[in-house]
Amino acid sequence: MALNYAKRMNNIRASEIRELLKLTQRPEVISFAGGLPAPELFPVEEFKRVAEEVLDEKGTAALQYGPTEGYLPLREKIVERMKKVKVDLESDNILITNGSQQGLDFSARIFINPGDVIICESPSYLGAINAFKAYEPRFVEVETDDEGMIMEDLEKALKENENVKFIYVIPDFQNPSGKTWSLERRKGLVELANKYNVAIIEDNPYGELRFEGEILPAVKHFDTEGRVIFLGTFSKIFCPGLRLGWVAADKEVLNKYVLVKQGADLQSSTISQMEVAKFLEVYDIEEHIEKLKKVYKKRKDLMIKTMEEEFPEGIKFTNPEGGLFTWVVLPKHINARKLAEKALEKNVAFVPGGSFFPNGGNENTFRMNYSNMDEERIVEGIKRLASVLKEALQ
Amino acid sequence: MALNYAKRMNNIRASEIRELLKLTQRPEVISFAGGLPAPELFPVEEFKRVAEEVLDEKGTAALQYGPTEGYLPLREKIVERMKKVKVDLESDNILITNGSQQGLDFSARIFINPGDVIICESPSYLGAINAFKAYEPRFVEVETDDEGMIMEDLEKALKENENVKFIYVIPDFQNPSGKTWSLERRKGLVELANKYNVAIIEDNPYGELRFEGEILPAVKHFDTEGRVIFLGTFSKIFCPGLRLGWVAADKEVLNKYVLVKQGADLQSSTISQMEVAKFLEVYDIEEHIEKLKKVYKKRKDLMIKTMEEEFPEGIKFTNPEGGLFTWVVLPKHINARKLAEKALEKNVAFVPGGSFFPNGGNENTFRMNYSNMDEERIVEGIKRLASVLKEALQ
Repeated sequence: MALNYAKRMNNIRASEIRELLKLTQRPEVISFAGGLPAPELFPVEEFKRVAEEVLDEKGTAALQYGPTEGYLPLREKIVERMKKVKVDLESDNILITNGSQQGLDFSARIFINPGDVIICESPSYLGAINAFKAYEPRFVEVETDDEGMIMEDLEKALKENENVKFIYVIPDFQNPSGKTWSLERRKGLVELANKYNVAIIEDNPYGELRFEGEILPAVKHFDTEGRVIFLGTFSKIFCPGLRLGWVAADKEVLNKYVLVKQGADLQSSTISQMEVAKFLEVYDIEEHIEKLKKVYKKRKDLMIKTMEEEFPEGIKFTNPEGGLFTWVVLPKHINARKLAEKALEKNVAFVPGGSFFPNGGNENTFRMNYSNMDEERIVEGIKRLASVLKEALQ
Repeated sequence: MALNYAKRMNNIRASEIRELLKLTQRPEVISFAGGLPAPELFPVEEFKRVAEEVLDEKGTAALQYGPTEGYLPLREKIVERMKKVKVDLESDNILITNGSQQGLDFSARIFINPGDVIICESPSYLGAINAFKAYEPRFVEVETDDEGMIMEDLEKALKENENVKFIYVIPDFQNPSGKTWSLERRKGLVELANKYNVAIIEDNPYGELRFEGEILPAVKHFDTEGRVIFLGTFSKIFCPGLRLGWVAADKEVLNKYVLVKQGADLQSSTISQMEVAKFLEVYDIEEHIEKLKKVYKKRKDLMIKTMEEEFPEGIKFTNPEGGLFTWVVLPKHINARKLAEKALEKNVAFVPGGSFFPNGGNENTFRMNYSNMDEERIVEGIKRLASVLKEALQ
């Protein structure tokens, strides 16, 4: 028996990360593959208290249906918190979603007809690429340097392609490259979007996890025409298991997201929204974020230092100022997928970089996560990886 | 500034129910409009206990990412519970979703190319119609009598239309009509789906809320070829605020749903899944369902009795054996949308029936919910409604 599926299903494949993660769940594997926060830093006791208070104070409402847009006090808290990235909005500009992943899916659903163009960074986030593919777009990748997309290349892409619907960017500590856009390029991005009348999807899960220096204004801060759609999430600064994120956009644009949310799943969990709102009310999340940053910075510094010491010559990697990932570039002739198999034999895992390029190629790259392993495992894992690399480079 | 949206956005409108519900939130309104369970029956204290235990026993895992398919112990519990409707599956056949609404959205995404045909009951569930519309299908409605779709009409629809992808049915206490399919028709439905090689989407949120008689085997029970996709939910037998439902399907088919779930939002809430699994472990949900049924039956009986006593001649309504809704048919010349405005002036609300017909018409119908109002308000609301009806029929 073979049912007739829709054409779009031909484009949808299992995420390589998800499949790889299944292999790496054996406890003996040192995994730099996922993008998981450190679970030992989750505020479990604090969460227990807020869960109890929510059920005591509004138990029946917490378990009942709520508005599609989301729980108003949580949307108000998000408005407050977005001032951190210099974005000034009202609660009417916020829709609560199931993580920012849902915001990615909705963005493609709202903008993309089959054959339309999405411009993205090269490389870009694998989970976004996979979500977008269901809507049958064409991807145009734009090269980045240490300050973000190269503006001349972006303008060329905008000029040479018809039906560009949006530019997708992760301006802070990008997944997978760890790179951050400069202020100047953020401004330039908005100017080009204005000139060519396209939307910008700004995906910002890591912006608040900055280890040094000042948090930069979001791209949305420079938005004068309501064309920047900001996707935020509690997954990296709080807990991913709750699946709570948000879309922040111009009211007219947000209304499209609300309509899509209605059809997609009516609303996000009422009780989870109340719990996060309560947490933000009774605890200092900034203090919690400071704790995360301290641990992640230490792990990142240790990973970079060990890589510098142990990796053979000819291998480049980024030294991110925040976020969860560093990005490794090998000599052209080395295939990171084959390398990953060899590393897994030594119980070390990472994600080969090829899947982060929607149009393929770049098989000599891989992504490393440093938030989820303790210091001992980081050192041991990098050493094992170095020996695999040395063998491959011989 | 006007951004260029995808063509599909022209089909997506705000759900009439959601918009109406906003108007009916004033406490003085007696609302028969929503499909809300009775919040006073939510097991708040029990839920507090399971929430506490989950956080005590596996706090960090509960707040971390989990598998896309869902939390295994919950999927196993669902396999057990599905024996109630005579469906025998394994946990590999179950994907956890955000309510069954997400299963509806995914079904259209997986099967529908623009222009493909969905066959549905006439009337059908408004939320499903809206979810499906985003994928630009053509709807073919099939008439129902007291035993389900009329088989001759269904076969005619299958024969006369190309690219029929699935038949969408709510076989138990249908939303909005309150009608239930007979055993014979369930069998016949599967036979026709086999003959014409189409899928069946069986949406079953109310099946367990049967006030009298035996629970009927699901349509899925008669599935010999893996073409019935069953959508279940905890919203009506437990709590809707958690947003937890499931898809039960043949493994090959389910795999498509899992791929779509990855792109859509990665996974449903880890902690909510653990809480429901824990509830099913430490409490007797059957006992809880018995409590719900008792209250809902009483409310339904009272609503029907009061309608019989108070409504003027010439108005028909169903007397459902379970579920949450009764369906009212007025004389042809009465427009229920206009009636709804008049009723709202008297602080009574219902949902006009026209939106339950994807191809329009049937404006002389409306849907009434009896689960969410207490007995006093039911009597008072029906009396007020009767006076509006009498005026309209004069």
